[in-house]
Amino acid sequence: MSDIKIAVLGVGIMGADHVARITSRISGAAVVVVNDYLAEKAETIAAGIPDCRAVGDPLDAIADAQVDAVVIASPGPSHEKQLLACLEHGKPVLCEKPLTTDAETSLAVVKREAELGNRLIQVGFMRRFDREYAQLKSMLDAGEFGRPLVLHCVHRNPAVPPTFDSAMVVRDSLVHEVDVTRFLFDEEITSIQIIRPATNPGAPEGIQDPQIAIMRTASGKHIDVELFVTTGVAYEVRTELVGEKGSAFIGLDVGLVRKTATGMWGGQITPGFRERFGQAYDTEFQRWVDAVHAGATTGDYTDGPVAWDGYAAAAVCEAGVRSLNSGEPVDVRMVARESIKGA
Amino acid sequence: MSDIKIAVLGVGIMGADHVARITSRISGAAVVVVNDYLAEKAETIAAGIPDCRAVGDPLDAIADAQVDAVVIASPGPSHEKQLLACLEHGKPVLCEKPLTTDAETSLAVVKREAELGNRLIQVGFMRRFDREYAQLKSMLDAGEFGRPLVLHCVHRNPAVPPTFDSAMVVRDSLVHEVDVTRFLFDEEITSIQIIRPATNPGAPEGIQDPQIAIMRTASGKHIDVELFVTTGVAYEVRTELVGEKGSAFIGLDVGLVRKTATGMWGGQITPGFRERFGQAYDTEFQRWVDAVHAGATTGDYTDGPVAWDGYAAAAVCEAGVRSLNSGEPVDVRMVARESIKGA
Amino acid sequence: MSDIKIAVLGVGIMGADHVARITSRISGAAVVVVNDYLAEKAETIAAGIPDCRAVGDPLDAIADAQVDAVVIASPGPSHEKQLLACLEHGKPVLCEKPLTTDAETSLAVVKREAELGNRLIQVGFMRRFDREYAQLKSMLDAGEFGRPLVLHCVHRNPAVPPTFDSAMVVRDSLVHEVDVTRFLFDEEITSIQIIRPATNPGAPEGIQDPQIAIMRTASGKHIDVELFVTTGVAYEVRTELVGEKGSAFIGLDVGLVRKTATGMWGGQITPGFRERFGQAYDTEFQRWVDAVHAGATTGDYTDGPVAWDGYAAAAVCEAGVRSLNSGEPVDVRMVARESIKGA
Amino acid sequence: MSDIKIAVLGVGIMGADHVARITSRISGAAVVVVNDYLAEKAETIAAGIPDCRAVGDPLDAIADAQVDAVVIASPGPSHEKQLLACLEHGKPVLCEKPLTTDAETSLAVVKREAELGNRLIQVGFMRRFDREYAQLKSMLDAGEFGRPLVLHCVHRNPAVPPTFDSAMVVRDSLVHEVDVTRFLFDEEITSIQIIRPATNPGAPEGIQDPQIAIMRTASGKHIDVELFVTTGVAYEVRTELVGEKGSAFIGLDVGLVRKTATGMWGGQITPGFRERFGQAYDTEFQRWVDAVHAGATTGDYTDGPVAWDGYAAAAVCEAGVRSLNSGEPVDVRMVARESIKGA
Repeated sequence: MSDIKIAVLGVGIMGADHVARITSRISGAAVVVVNDYLAEKAETIAAGIPDCRAVGDPLDAIADAQVDAVVIASPGPSHEKQLLACLEHGKPVLCEKPLTTDAETSLAVVKREAELGNRLIQVGFMRRFDREYAQLKSMLDAGEFGRPLVLHCVHRNPAVPPTFDSAMVVRDSLVHEVDVTRFLFDEEITSIQIIRPATNPGAPEGIQDPQIAIMRTASGKHIDVELFVTTGVAYEVRTELVGEKGSAFIGLDVGLVRKTATGMWGGQITPGFRERFGQAYDTEFQRWVDAVHAGATTGDYTDGPVAWDGYAAAAVCEAGVRSLNSGEPVDVRMVARESIKGA
Repeated sequence: MSDIKIAVLGVGIMGADHVARITSRISGAAVVVVNDYLAEKAETIAAGIPDCRAVGDPLDAIADAQVDAVVIASPGPSHEKQLLACLEHGKPVLCEKPLTTDAETSLAVVKREAELGNRLIQVGFMRRFDREYAQLKSMLDAGEFGRPLVLHCVHRNPAVPPTFDSAMVVRDSLVHEVDVTRFLFDEEITSIQIIRPATNPGAPEGIQDPQIAIMRTASGKHIDVELFVTTGVAYEVRTELVGEKGSAFIGLDVGLVRKTATGMWGGQITPGFRERFGQAYDTEFQRWVDAVHAGATTGDYTDGPVAWDGYAAAAVCEAGVRSLNSGEPVDVRMVARESIKGA
Repeated sequence: MSDIKIAVLGVGIMGADHVARITSRISGAAVVVVNDYLAEKAETIAAGIPDCRAVGDPLDAIADAQVDAVVIASPGPSHEKQLLACLEHGKPVLCEKPLTTDAETSLAVVKREAELGNRLIQVGFMRRFDREYAQLKSMLDAGEFGRPLVLHCVHRNPAVPPTFDSAMVVRDSLVHEVDVTRFLFDEEITSIQIIRPATNPGAPEGIQDPQIAIMRTASGKHIDVELFVTTGVAYEVRTELVGEKGSAFIGLDVGLVRKTATGMWGGQITPGFRERFGQAYDTEFQRWVDAVHAGATTGDYTDGPVAWDGYAAAAVCEAGVRSLNSGEPVDVRMVARESIKGA
Repeated sequence: MSDIKIAVLGVGIMGADHVARITSRISGAAVVVVNDYLAEKAETIAAGIPDCRAVGDPLDAIADAQVDAVVIASPGPSHEKQLLACLEHGKPVLCEKPLTTDAETSLAVVKREAELGNRLIQVGFMRRFDREYAQLKSMLDAGEFGRPLVLHCVHRNPAVPPTFDSAMVVRDSLVHEVDVTRFLFDEEITSIQIIRPATNPGAPEGIQDPQIAIMRTASGKHIDVELFVTTGVAYEVRTELVGEKGSAFIGLDVGLVRKTATGMWGGQITPGFRERFGQAYDTEFQRWVDAVHAGATTGDYTDGPVAWDGYAAAAVCEAGVRSLNSGEPVDVRMVARESIKGA
């Protein structure tokens, strides 16, 4: 199974992250084309990746016969044209939010994809892939909270760029809670109100911050969202679901916390070593593979515990087993590391 | 940069996990050879991977000219011979713990590698790559706890196979805390005592469980470890470091928790979206790439939010911006999804 | 300093609690008169307290020359007349909320007290005396959050009596958050909106539950309150204050938790034994005093560890000091308890 | 029921705390006699309490016909003589730990009390009255953890007086865990070992700190205690009980936290307003009673929300009920506070 060949359109902060992601952290894909309206930035990034070219026109990148699929991380106003081109060329596309900058053009894209008949577009609402949101959704669907009633959300950024304005709080921040609501509840939002409290003295002139969004779904569920993008503190994204049979928090920095009808608050204990150390194994292997790639020049093919560490562990465990049998403290016997040149 | 070609020796539970890891979750490597003493198991696994063969003799696998590097997940008694073969062929090797089954043969392996002059062996102490252990080590090295004094560890499994015996608690469980101690403190353990409390009534006949290990390092640091492999509860691996200037817990299922001289307990707030949602982005991309691979037959190239979800978000945000300006609740206007065939 | 002699008006659940509180848990006061519209209930309670009488008319109780002060725990509609009588007789009064049942009569009470010139009335908003609310107020006043901006509250009851109606959610539940807001912010609330989400299927017919209250203060601070009185779970009263320089939660069942600009979440470590065990000492002494009262008939004047427990501790500590000196395990030597008749 | 008249022997830090406790926080007792080897200190304290005298000789205080019961908070070496005198006079006595300074004299006291036939002595192991320890004991006795197996304890002080020595760590700190062990497990401790790790560089010259105590009970239960009295951090007293069916932590500053066989960690949600706000009501009443005592001179008989606060709440709730009915935001109407002189 050969790698999927991807063109990444837009290699600003987000796009460059995605290039690194495809190249160094996930399996089965390779970036073969990058494009940016700053041609030099695209050239630099392409130069760092084997078999990757910079292409000057995003539509050429999409049309390129070598390209199997497209990632759009360009500015929002470019999305519509790029998405339509992907549809015409039958290329699967992962498009950073927003789909397009307004509802009308978004609808046009939806309709064109439907006409052509293949589901080619995925929108980058990444929270659906976050462990905690996925866990909450799965518990909700399993009926663990009964009927959901209310959703309280908090979305706080420590700071925003000087170009940020009040409407961007809605379009760029709230948009995630809009999708979270629709994802969790599987229904549409029918009304929205933005409340403007007294403003944070530390916010830039002219920006309304914080804002409180009040939303309601078709079936009458209530959602409130505190949006606060100049907290000076940290990045806090929190969601509390309140249902007929209990509630759950995610985003408290302590995993999913739940309140149940048995009168207990708390979360799940890690059930086994895969859940506890799965990430550690993945990281261990990725870093070992990277070290092996690098090892030809250094003669050191590891990025972790070496043979000596294995020997030391064996010596301690041997003494431990003797103590298990005798009940007495046992001294550990090891040769001096310095006695072995190169150990 | 072409993939590193790996032979995996031993494809039991652990080895099969590693095969899946290399094949589907990390970048830059491919499994080209698998071996197991159960030939059929190796055949089955090889059949599921493009360009992968089963090889009957592990030493042939190591010697195979196509193989760049080796993962050893075979039973402990096979390790010594396989490691030495890797050294002779100059193949980098990631070896699951234990290095070998006793200190004497481990030392022989250390010496042979040192003689040959290249660091080829990495031992599978994966906790060093766990986010919490790495964070603790980094805080410790930065002097945030002053001089470390005491380490309290808990290592609990819900259950063990019927073949487990008291010495395996030391060799297979405690060995991880042995390495954690050496990793955190950068010094050797000089004595060990195993205390045998009254046994868990639920433990299998003849097994001493729980056990308490008391260890001491060269500089006099104290380490205690509760080893308890038949708790019936869950998998709990916990470490508390006590230093001159404060203490920290990992493994409480709530991230690293710290007690500081400012009189506060707690942990770190996620500083930004990369730390909070980095895993979500990786998962999103891995699953999208997998969906694109699968899409040719289904016409559906996504595993996440589709164009309609982008349109719905745009419609809500548009209404939100109107409410931001007017201060009034605004109804969201959308076409009916059913009106667009295929949306 | 002799005890203050108190009349308690209304000895339903709340009033009876207050009688027990004054009689058995606090210092410096005694209940000498109780009154209830159910005369028999008052008689029963009076009979259980030394030197306490039941009185049939609450106004007689207030006027009683032996009564120094009054606690009003009668139904809301009786409050106005009883409060005015207390004012006329110059008796200090602690009145359960509500002050009276509407703003107009409350204002009349305020005016009458002001005319008479002595501050005699205290309203039973007990949250101001809760450790967590007091701590939050004190941190806020010390400027630890900068200017406060937003308050998120949750007020959940597992169930309410069948007579509860939608307006009582506002008058009996929300009233506490109204006072909390005014207490924390030291300013008045200028507008309020009650949002009616889809109703909990488990709520009694006709009751709107949950309700969401949106309030705004004179300076523009935003407060939202989820009111949910049929959760079936437990009693959850939670408040999150969001300020210019950080935020804090109370009511998470884990003490006050704070998020600070240093990027840490967490709470205070108990600074010393008084804070950690002050309640234990109070309880120890209250129960010992109660046991001494009871001891004349039983010959057992303790409700806690006895002399034997002191002996056993001394024996273990002696062995401990020997081990401290020798470094070896030391057996504890004690006589058999059975050898001492009556120990 | 008249107050029990108490003599307090020793009014240093601890004894003075107990005097305040009896006088101002608990019901049913009064301090009538105080004694201290510093006569002046006793005089000063007596002067602050109505109907209380200082007495120069502790044995006179015990013998005093007006004294019903005795609290011993004098230095340990005085305890034996004072306890025996209490026994001879048949006076109930609450004696701060230690009972006496060694096992031999403690045993003599136990025997004398047993001979005389009345249980008069209670030892001041106050942790048995701490809410968390009591909760743990009660869960344990209810079988919620199955058979208890292991107890891990931590006992940390930020600092100790310069006179503190290594043996006092055992006698004054560890003694509490000795009693906790006996309290929780209802059995005697049969052996003890003190481990001496490398010492905290911040500890005073000559003091062994930290120390690790390893204890074993008659039935083989294992207890370990980290004793560390110069942490510089805070006061941390923590106990983890590990049983056959789960484990629980107390002293994490977040209430009792439990790990259960359902795979959940967490604690109890407050079941109702009594549990959540019981302390607040007690404090409210104690402070109101104190304010009423003080009010005669100031004309202000409250220490909390006044009538105006009741009026303001009524005005907001009235507006809330109107909004509940209309669904619209409603402005709150109130008179200006300044318009009412004295409100």
